[in-house]
Amino acid sequence: MFDAAAGALDWLGVLVFAASGALAAARKGMDLVGFALLAVATGIGGGTIRDVLLGRLPVFWVGEPLWLLACVGAGLAVFVVAPRLRGAGTGRRLRLLLWLDAVGLAVFAVTGAETARLAGAGPVVSVAMGAVTASFGGILRDVLAGEQPVVLSREIYVTAALAGAAVFVAALPWLGREGAMALGFAAGFGLRGAALRRGWSLPRTGPPRP
Amino acid sequence: MFDAAAGALDWLGVLVFAASGALAAARKGMDLVGFALLAVATGIGGGTIRDVLLGRLPVFWVGEPLWLLACVGAGLAVFVVAPRLRGAGTGRRLRLLLWLDAVGLAVFAVTGAETARLAGAGPVVSVAMGAVTASFGGILRDVLAGEQPVVLSREIYVTAALAGAAVFVAALPWLGREGAMALGFAAGFGLRGAALRRGWSLPRTGPPRP
Amino acid sequence: MFDAAAGALDWLGVLVFAASGALAAARKGMDLVGFALLAVATGIGGGTIRDVLLGRLPVFWVGEPLWLLACVGAGLAVFVVAPRLRGAGTGRRLRLLLWLDAVGLAVFAVTGAETARLAGAGPVVSVAMGAVTASFGGILRDVLAGEQPVVLSREIYVTAALAGAAVFVAALPWLGREGAMALGFAAGFGLRGAALRRGWSLPRTGPPRP
Repeated sequence: MFDAAAGALDWLGVLVFAASGALAAARKGMDLVGFALLAVATGIGGGTIRDVLLGRLPVFWVGEPLWLLACVGAGLAVFVVAPRLRGAGTGRRLRLLLWLDAVGLAVFAVTGAETARLAGAGPVVSVAMGAVTASFGGILRDVLAGEQPVVLSREIYVTAALAGAAVFVAALPWLGREGAMALGFAAGFGLRGAALRRGWSLPRTGPPRP
Repeated sequence: MFDAAAGALDWLGVLVFAASGALAAARKGMDLVGFALLAVATGIGGGTIRDVLLGRLPVFWVGEPLWLLACVGAGLAVFVVAPRLRGAGTGRRLRLLLWLDAVGLAVFAVTGAETARLAGAGPVVSVAMGAVTASFGGILRDVLAGEQPVVLSREIYVTAALAGAAVFVAALPWLGREGAMALGFAAGFGLRGAALRRGWSLPRTGPPRP
Repeated sequence: MFDAAAGALDWLGVLVFAASGALAAARKGMDLVGFALLAVATGIGGGTIRDVLLGRLPVFWVGEPLWLLACVGAGLAVFVVAPRLRGAGTGRRLRLLLWLDAVGLAVFAVTGAETARLAGAGPVVSVAMGAVTASFGGILRDVLAGEQPVVLSREIYVTAALAGAAVFVAALPWLGREGAMALGFAAGFGLRGAALRRGWSLPRTGPPRP
């Protein structure tokens, strides 16, 4: 939003999240409009909730409808492509999506924290808003699909967003905005990537009880 | 909200949506307060989320508590009547509710889009806000009742809201507000009605996978 | 928030609600971050939704991050303690939590209604906002945990919040703020406590139907 590079990554993040929303619609057997709606909710949901909590209203996409249209486009693209994704190569494509999603996560953690800072929030709230921006799209996707949110129970996900946002906020006085954004992105993406690669997860208290 | 006719239809829409929320509470065996809460959430939920996203705060019913009271009244009415609805004639009454719900859908699509336009939104966002107003009450109802939102997976519902809002926005420069509202309402109601009558639905990619 | 006593009770309410969110995370086998997130959502969710609806933005904890940190702390404390809570004494501790939760419920009903009144809302909306503040944290907890919200279907819960807020609003012109807050708290806590003690519940229309 503030830099060309961050802007391009923001677009990538929104599109990847939109695609993951549409894939959830595919798993649930939804129709065309279900694909579009879940793509929109997942793609721009995190930034929307961040804007509402901060009082940045109307929310960011009301004045820039291209975000909305891009999510719908990503949803329709998945609708066309999804039936062919079954069978050979599915595992590899899912893997690719998880890595793209990690890019989106790391971008949103940093840009979400910076947006909060620019709106006057202190460091703790800025870090929290980075995590909100990065993870609430996925939470919304799962709630709308009628599932328990995976980001709350699987692997290192919100943790990576918190880490990326915290590194950005901590590095800001030392490295300036560009440097801090790069370092925060690296921290968030690195942690999420390591979790994906090695199956890292945080300690739990035990298996779910019914 | 702006016209006597649209205002009367708005009331009808809110009451019908409130009743559908209370019927969901009945299916779930909730108590009196559950009926009232689901009636309120379903009746004014869509307009509330629209107002928050547009930054029209406080939301519309804070200054006009009659909306709240009307939803509670509809919920209590269903609570009294619901136990007698079982058995003979249930199918016909459900059918009536679906048709009233279609009226609410078409009204909210048009008035939601007009509210967004008056708040300064462009055409794309106005159409989206029409769909939000018409469908998020029902989504909220299903999430609160612990179910996957039906509007995302069944028949032509959000599509009809989008169509009604789009026709209204497109016709506005040509027909003026009254004419465009009438045409938008006809488009939304006609499409939803045709879907109800003929069992129309949008293409899907396949059955839900567990 | 406005009084030392109410302020201390507000803190108690937030911490108890945060603990109940973390206990839900424990039941679902979530990781450390899941505990923190559910603690935050349950602890400050009700007040956050109240602030958004009233247009008191940014929401209250953006300028006071201690609320956020306190919820995270409560979540981590439950994470450490939860595995030892199984076995002997669990029933008694759950009982204690229910009673502390009743304190939080009664506090939030009164302070939520007062916050709405100070923001310019009339009596009906103030009572509704008391109930929103007291019950939406728990609703959010259950939705995020993938369950049907218990406050909508079990015992006298929202009813107690409505009663406490209504007594406060009705007594305000007669008793002044301190007196009305005390009476409202007593009404909400008394009703919820009686429901806990005697298993009171509101009439229903029948068992849930699948």
